[in-house]
Amino acid sequence: MREPRQERSRTTRRRLVEAAVECIAERGWNGITVAVIAERAGVSRGAAQHHFPAREDLVAAAVELVGETQLIELRTRSADLPPGSSRIEPVVDMLFNLYAGPMFRAALHLWVAASTDDALRSVLVPLEARVGREAHRVALELLGVDESHPGVREMVQATLDLARGLGLANLLTDDTRRRQQIVRQWAQVLAPALPQAAPAGS
Amino acid sequence: MREPRQERSRTTRRRLVEAAVECIAERGWNGITVAVIAERAGVSRGAAQHHFPAREDLVAAAVELVGETQLIELRTRSADLPPGSSRIEPVVDMLFNLYAGPMFRAALHLWVAASTDDALRSVLVPLEARVGREAHRVALELLGVDESHPGVREMVQATLDLARGLGLANLLTDDTRRRQQIVRQWAQVLAPALPQAAPAGS
Repeated sequence: MREPRQERSRTTRRRLVEAAVECIAERGWNGITVAVIAERAGVSRGAAQHHFPAREDLVAAAVELVGETQLIELRTRSADLPPGSSRIEPVVDMLFNLYAGPMFRAALHLWVAASTDDALRSVLVPLEARVGREAHRVALELLGVDESHPGVREMVQATLDLARGLGLANLLTDDTRRRQQIVRQWAQVLAPALPQAAPAGS
Repeated sequence: MREPRQERSRTTRRRLVEAAVECIAERGWNGITVAVIAERAGVSRGAAQHHFPAREDLVAAAVELVGETQLIELRTRSADLPPGSSRIEPVVDMLFNLYAGPMFRAALHLWVAASTDDALRSVLVPLEARVGREAHRVALELLGVDESHPGVREMVQATLDLARGLGLANLLTDDTRRRQQIVRQWAQVLAPALPQAAPAGS
């Protein structure tokens, strides 16, 4: 009986965290409570409060889920891309679209709420630093570039900062068309600035 | 007696709007009321409510003040820059620092609040579209570039989106050092991508 109960508990927890990310993206940090999240997840309030006594207790799990989900999505979608500089435009497109989606929207609500809430800030800052480093590592890997060349580190950072700026521009209006034009232009800027890493075995 | 009274009224209104921007930057949209702003401005609640019956009535004036103040600051600080491509790095530095400051922080609070508040959104979207166009026009002017060249429009847009992304990265922690490195790298990318406009009279 022990295994299934642990598994049920893990499933419940996962559903609550997924519901939390959706609720934060839609209603903002100030619009959510554990009760709201429990209802969205189809979980009883008691069970929700057992896993997450307060909404603050959801933050670490939510940020982890967002980071992990985005990583899996990027890795899956980039698996079939060709090597070399022709992968730059599709990778930039993927990155920019990722930051224009509901998960970045949830992160944005958390960041802005944390800027006026010291307790939330102290939870969020180390989490976001870790997610930021991970995003940088994955961007390097997907672009297939070697960071030891001068300027490469800053160009990859600028790509992620630009992605976040474009995500912000997509918050109140649909900015897709303009973003597509910037994807094309950005890929043209990145191509000569990013020396491709030597293929494995060369 | 008529002139001084009108002038007093304008001064009161201006102090309220300045206080509103400061309060929104520090406490967020959900942390403010007209009473909080009146206290910060050193104005009676009655006088504040005469000018701005509800905090929503302050939004247009606050966004206008931010746009106008930033424009004046940019124009003043760029007046003595040399013409040609050597002005690119100081202009990028100015733009990036502007978006890392309290006025962008206030805008960020408003945008995120508007994403879950339809009334605020309907006020903010047309205002922000206007401020965005104005920022683009000023960036072109300060960089001294001609938008009719292919790609220039997107590069200037990307510069402003990057500035907003860097502003976001400066929200919870002091990101100045990393931002300076991106300024240098970005100026190197922009210089060859932006053909300078012909000097007047040539």
